[in-house]
Amino acid sequence: MRPDELPEYAALARHHAEIGARHLRDLYADDPDRAEQMAVWLDDLRFDYARHRVTDETVKLLAAFARARGVEDARAAMLRGDAINSTEGRAVLHTALRDPDGALGGLDDAARAEVAEERARMAAFVERVQQGEWLGHDGQSISDVVNLGIGGSDLGPAMVTEALAPDRRGPAVHFVSNVDGAHLHRTLHRLDPARTLFVVASKSFTTQETLTNARSARRWLLASGAGPRAVAKHFVALSTNEEGVRAFGIDPANMFRFWDWVGGRFSLWSVIGLPIALATSMQTFDELCAGAHAVDVHFRDAPLEENIPALMALLSWWYTEFFGVRAHAVLPYDQLLARLPAYLQQAEMESNGKRVTRDGAPVAGATCPVIFGEPGTNGQHAFYQLLHQGTQIIPADFLVAAEARHPLDHHHRLLLANCFAQAEALARGRTADEVRAGLGKEGEGLVAHRTFPGNRPSSLFLYRRLDAATLGKLIALYEHKIFVQGVLWGVNSFDQWGVELGKVLAKAIAPSLEPDAAVTVDDPSTAVAIDVVKAMRGERR
Amino acid sequence: MRPDELPEYAALARHHAEIGARHLRDLYADDPDRAEQMAVWLDDLRFDYARHRVTDETVKLLAAFARARGVEDARAAMLRGDAINSTEGRAVLHTALRDPDGALGGLDDAARAEVAEERARMAAFVERVQQGEWLGHDGQSISDVVNLGIGGSDLGPAMVTEALAPDRRGPAVHFVSNVDGAHLHRTLHRLDPARTLFVVASKSFTTQETLTNARSARRWLLASGAGPRAVAKHFVALSTNEEGVRAFGIDPANMFRFWDWVGGRFSLWSVIGLPIALATSMQTFDELCAGAHAVDVHFRDAPLEENIPALMALLSWWYTEFFGVRAHAVLPYDQLLARLPAYLQQAEMESNGKRVTRDGAPVAGATCPVIFGEPGTNGQHAFYQLLHQGTQIIPADFLVAAEARHPLDHHHRLLLANCFAQAEALARGRTADEVRAGLGKEGEGLVAHRTFPGNRPSSLFLYRRLDAATLGKLIALYEHKIFVQGVLWGVNSFDQWGVELGKVLAKAIAPSLEPDAAVTVDDPSTAVAIDVVKAMRGERR
Repeated sequence: MRPDELPEYAALARHHAEIGARHLRDLYADDPDRAEQMAVWLDDLRFDYARHRVTDETVKLLAAFARARGVEDARAAMLRGDAINSTEGRAVLHTALRDPDGALGGLDDAARAEVAEERARMAAFVERVQQGEWLGHDGQSISDVVNLGIGGSDLGPAMVTEALAPDRRGPAVHFVSNVDGAHLHRTLHRLDPARTLFVVASKSFTTQETLTNARSARRWLLASGAGPRAVAKHFVALSTNEEGVRAFGIDPANMFRFWDWVGGRFSLWSVIGLPIALATSMQTFDELCAGAHAVDVHFRDAPLEENIPALMALLSWWYTEFFGVRAHAVLPYDQLLARLPAYLQQAEMESNGKRVTRDGAPVAGATCPVIFGEPGTNGQHAFYQLLHQGTQIIPADFLVAAEARHPLDHHHRLLLANCFAQAEALARGRTADEVRAGLGKEGEGLVAHRTFPGNRPSSLFLYRRLDAATLGKLIALYEHKIFVQGVLWGVNSFDQWGVELGKVLAKAIAPSLEPDAAVTVDDPSTAVAIDVVKAMRGERR
Repeated sequence: MRPDELPEYAALARHHAEIGARHLRDLYADDPDRAEQMAVWLDDLRFDYARHRVTDETVKLLAAFARARGVEDARAAMLRGDAINSTEGRAVLHTALRDPDGALGGLDDAARAEVAEERARMAAFVERVQQGEWLGHDGQSISDVVNLGIGGSDLGPAMVTEALAPDRRGPAVHFVSNVDGAHLHRTLHRLDPARTLFVVASKSFTTQETLTNARSARRWLLASGAGPRAVAKHFVALSTNEEGVRAFGIDPANMFRFWDWVGGRFSLWSVIGLPIALATSMQTFDELCAGAHAVDVHFRDAPLEENIPALMALLSWWYTEFFGVRAHAVLPYDQLLARLPAYLQQAEMESNGKRVTRDGAPVAGATCPVIFGEPGTNGQHAFYQLLHQGTQIIPADFLVAAEARHPLDHHHRLLLANCFAQAEALARGRTADEVRAGLGKEGEGLVAHRTFPGNRPSSLFLYRRLDAATLGKLIALYEHKIFVQGVLWGVNSFDQWGVELGKVLAKAIAPSLEPDAAVTVDDPSTAVAIDVVKAMRGERR
């Protein structure tokens, strides 16, 4: 059944007609306790949703809608390992990667043993590299690791490694993703081939960007005078494709495995997390996983009305469906979370940027909004103008730690003040009368410009400090939010057919770009563009 | 008059009713020459707009609408220095900063002489630093420069410095913007105080983040054992506020000036560009400015139908007004332009994220869309799924160079192939019949998932190489696009009242966050958040 045919949807639509236009100022006036009560704690993390355009009644109706959409059954199906990635016939079990005791189910004993084995191999490898026992071709230890991967094999590990910089105990870890040679070239020119380890991360081991970078990295190593046997000492692989790894020349003994039930954008908990562990420690990586596992248990057990990921999903759905919202801002008040918005762009937009339901019917309304953001306070001096006074409503997630992980504590208090101030300003706004009260008569012409409509919703994620466990929690909260949203919309959040056509066309176009090749593409604009490139390069057209 | 009351608007609305639903496939079939003809050249840069949902007739109607909105008069008013920033009573003359011969007008001789003088002082300073003649407190030369600035005093210089990395000839230049102490702390812990120069960039010299960072940087310098007189040798200022600079302890001889007619987000052409020149050279900075000036002349002289910034603005307006577009993707196929989307977030969203017109009336429709993006090919493995198969239309700008500035040319051909393939895939899509042709009968269940609607518009900016002149052109194109959009919407693109309220509230909140302070804020959610922070930190509540 389409979501908008459910009686629970009709109840929400009626409710929206009643309260949708109400201002947050009035919702607070009606219920002064909402600031305390509209929040859910999970260990030392508090999810505050009091600044959303909802009442207790809204939350009840949203939860009822989620139940009617089958969120609870779908959650159980995911955790027990049903092939909920229906278009690819795969289970979705990243939760099992951070479940050492098998408390959540989903994997049989053999599969669990494989997970544990890869984890143990990963730990042993990290130990060897960090202790200086893993040696390069001329007997030196490893000073730098370069992760070669893109998308899910890059964004998660890169984001986490940066976020956990205060936990660094290992070599410097660099991330090269783009096929643009500038990315590899500018990274390698500072490094010593004899002390550099490449981690080639590709689930399929056919990813064009990653394999192109890996081949150029191999050439760079060999050009330094290392013999061909050096490859085994300077390259390891993270993949599901042993044959491909072997064909590249990497010793399968140096391959770390994962499985088709781990989606790329949910894979940082698998061996794809190796660069995280190399940069920090296996213990830090375990803490990251333990944090995520705590969320998994919360997600499984908490009633939807008090279930953080379910609330995150329902609130986002509420705005998309009834308020015409098309974008969502992620605003970490933490410079070390600078890449969180980019990470969540993939996690959310690749998962739920879909227009057909599981059975192939067009989705009734809108699905995933655009996810964007920059760290606060930087964003305040950039795009917040539009958040406050633009013509579209953009819900925001604020994330901030009570304690800093650096010694400049007075900076951190200012950071907190700014974070809270922005959430307050978005919610309350400033009325024309309030502006007038602060202006003389001569300022009347500025009143409209200095008025803020307010009533712009936000969540506040407040936690003690950004350690590995907390970061693991935050990531897992978003993962399950994405899952719930997918169920609400009825889409398969775990495939990505939308990346297919571009790959096919790039393969068809590439030969025409070779210097002496004729241009044999069909599309007139592509043909013209190739002609222009060749003319600019002085090549035969 | 409201834009939607103009007859030219009505003509566009009628035209949209006729062609708005037509597919780009059909537009190409009707007019096979559009691939060649819907493009404008400017030196060795080609702006290709053939993949937009427009015909020649649309462009004529859009240009007529722009004329009716007074774009040509407004352009003349800007260039001649009228106080078009009406709410602040200021001229808008960043064009005059890159106009060494005064060809565009706008400044009187005295002001032009001041511009030339600051430019000469900047050149002399760059020379001294780069030649090792500027010495730190113990007589060593400068190895590292740290720019302390935020928003317009950070994003432009940071983006350009990264983009022009191949032109680097000077010290390493770092950028610290966030008040989050992690930003400063993690930057400084790698640096040598005796060889580090701080550039404090703040138009007002009161920016909280920048001054907080500057004071902590000064402490770091003094804590290294340098005497108080070392400040003069390790700090320079970029500002309009000489008194503030002096009060901080910076010698006014080491202050570089600009003027209130330079808006923060248009200021990289002023002394705010100093870090660019320090990292590269004054010649490179001059080339950057010369590229921008070439665009200024084009913008002034080309008829709107062939005027690249005007076309950029009109196309964006067309989608916002008639297609319900709320987001716009910036997709540089250039890793070194990684920060261009963040730069344009400020440039566009702070300029045009407005809801009232110049005279204070509510804007009739929607204004600035959300700007977001990541470098291609990275984005392909992240959010492109939504661009191709999501439920909203997101116009995109593709930017790519014919030639790389690194030796891995085969990477660059793949990069070009991917860029062209994505634009083609967005425009053409893939029909259900085309999917079926490639699938066996058993694949019928996948047809809807593998179908792409296409008809998603994009521009292609194709240029010989990303040198300083080309980068200057690209930035100036966006600047004037923003200006034209502002005129179409009737807003003042040059103020930013929407950043005001958050600052006021942050100042009011900060004292309550001090360890021993009582919590005296009014907003209930802010009060709760402060209580939670204090509890987490074990401080008195």
